[in-house]
Amino acid sequence: MTAPESEEAMLARGRASIDRQGMMATLGVELIAVERGRVELALRHDDRFTQQHGFMHAGAVAAVLDSACGYAAYSVMPPDASVLTVTYTINLLAPAAGQRFAVTGSVVRAGRTLVVCRGEAFADGAERPFAAMQATMTALHDRPGISG
Amino acid sequence: MTAPESEEAMLARGRASIDRQGMMATLGVELIAVERGRVELALRHDDRFTQQHGFMHAGAVAAVLDSACGYAAYSVMPPDASVLTVTYTINLLAPAAGQRFAVTGSVVRAGRTLVVCRGEAFADGAERPFAAMQATMTALHDRPGISG
Amino acid sequence: MTAPESEEAMLARGRASIDRQGMMATLGVELIAVERGRVELALRHDDRFTQQHGFMHAGAVAAVLDSACGYAAYSVMPPDASVLTVTYTINLLAPAAGQRFAVTGSVVRAGRTLVVCRGEAFADGAERPFAAMQATMTALHDRPGISG
Amino acid sequence: MTAPESEEAMLARGRASIDRQGMMATLGVELIAVERGRVELALRHDDRFTQQHGFMHAGAVAAVLDSACGYAAYSVMPPDASVLTVTYTINLLAPAAGQRFAVTGSVVRAGRTLVVCRGEAFADGAERPFAAMQATMTALHDRPGISG
Repeated sequence: MTAPESEEAMLARGRASIDRQGMMATLGVELIAVERGRVELALRHDDRFTQQHGFMHAGAVAAVLDSACGYAAYSVMPPDASVLTVTYTINLLAPAAGQRFAVTGSVVRAGRTLVVCRGEAFADGAERPFAAMQATMTALHDRPGISG
Repeated sequence: MTAPESEEAMLARGRASIDRQGMMATLGVELIAVERGRVELALRHDDRFTQQHGFMHAGAVAAVLDSACGYAAYSVMPPDASVLTVTYTINLLAPAAGQRFAVTGSVVRAGRTLVVCRGEAFADGAERPFAAMQATMTALHDRPGISG
Repeated sequence: MTAPESEEAMLARGRASIDRQGMMATLGVELIAVERGRVELALRHDDRFTQQHGFMHAGAVAAVLDSACGYAAYSVMPPDASVLTVTYTINLLAPAAGQRFAVTGSVVRAGRTLVVCRGEAFADGAERPFAAMQATMTALHDRPGISG
Repeated sequence: MTAPESEEAMLARGRASIDRQGMMATLGVELIAVERGRVELALRHDDRFTQQHGFMHAGAVAAVLDSACGYAAYSVMPPDASVLTVTYTINLLAPAAGQRFAVTGSVVRAGRTLVVCRGEAFADGAERPFAAMQATMTALHDRPGISG
């Protein structure tokens, strides 16, 4: 049995994982905070990823919410595990209007092979999310990391 | 009452809409075919949008599936309507391993304000999809286009 | 403009609505508490609604979660509105093993025509839910009540 | 290796499984047809399971759709496996107005531990479904049957 990983180690592990993902690097996603069962990512408005009314495309928001749920699941798994998204449901409650988006992921319940998470995305410090996700993640035990 | 739009007109309208979306242009999405209630888009592998094992990131696939469902819904709406995604569920059945991905969207049923669609993504001519979506879209009647 | 409805009035309105639904009455669902944007229902184990291992069938749990989300949405709507479920996603995290199930519904965000809610079901005072729902409800303004 | 099960054997196995489920028996669900990867169930209108406008409650419809997806998954698994629902998304496209409902389930893709299915419910011979489901099922290998 190993000691629980420190938050500092989880942050370093998460940031290294983001660096290995072309998509997260291209979107400019930052890992802000991580604790056991909960993470916060940040995304900035970028004209390359807009829909036609000039707001961030739901696809970009969904990718970051999916990653937030993935890192939340990852934070309750052994360090050698790999996270895969099985399925998620996203509700788009309002346009992604703003400059900076806080995207949180948290574990609802972790089973033996499946972890269910929830994600929320907030624009510029708003109190109510503009997008909400319920995600089912699974663990692979042969290759560490987040597989998106 | 207006005459039904021709497939040629729908294609032109769809391509103009994709050009107005930074996200779809950045991903290099092409509109391959459209008929009333069904569209096909194409996406190519791009290293900027990968996860860490080098496959296309689920977020890119989801964005294109979401758009395929959006265009399918759009194809059964009046030309002045705008499509918004209310919610979707995506299942990721296998990694997006391949060079070219066909992404289809089709209408399950169109109600007065909501249209339910299904999307599937196929890699390099495979028969079974590697991703499947069930999406709920809504129509706005003040601004034409796909809002993603 | 009307005064906000009291919790007592909301409880009475909710109980009357449950009485009008054959399904909720047959399942023996009770409305325990309601406040603006949040409700709690209770369900008891019943051998008529089991799956083959003797636990309550997911269908019974889903019906009550759906209703909890419906009543939560209803609690933020004008009294003359009617709630319809557009779509929901349910995760079944563990068997419904227990005698009494607390089923909560709460509003994530209410828009003009759509209300997004979350529901959780807990067995016998457990801290972690055994089922979680994300639901999209809509309001009809011609006929009051919950339509399930 | 064993020979593939005959459709007759699958029907007998499915009917025995329905008989062991209090919920399916209480709802009066019938197994109409089964082939590898696809099943059809039937449900009849029953006043005990209505919502307040007198239509069948979405919860009853969801339970039968969930079962149809479960049996479809079951039909592609070894006979000693047990099916569990991980998660599903249901869209309710119209009220369940009718006397007899045909409920189909079919496999989209079967992986090693997860099977993704789609379900549709049709009223009185209608061509368009009034409800659509996308479901993720898993196999347990220690206890045969459908666990709902």
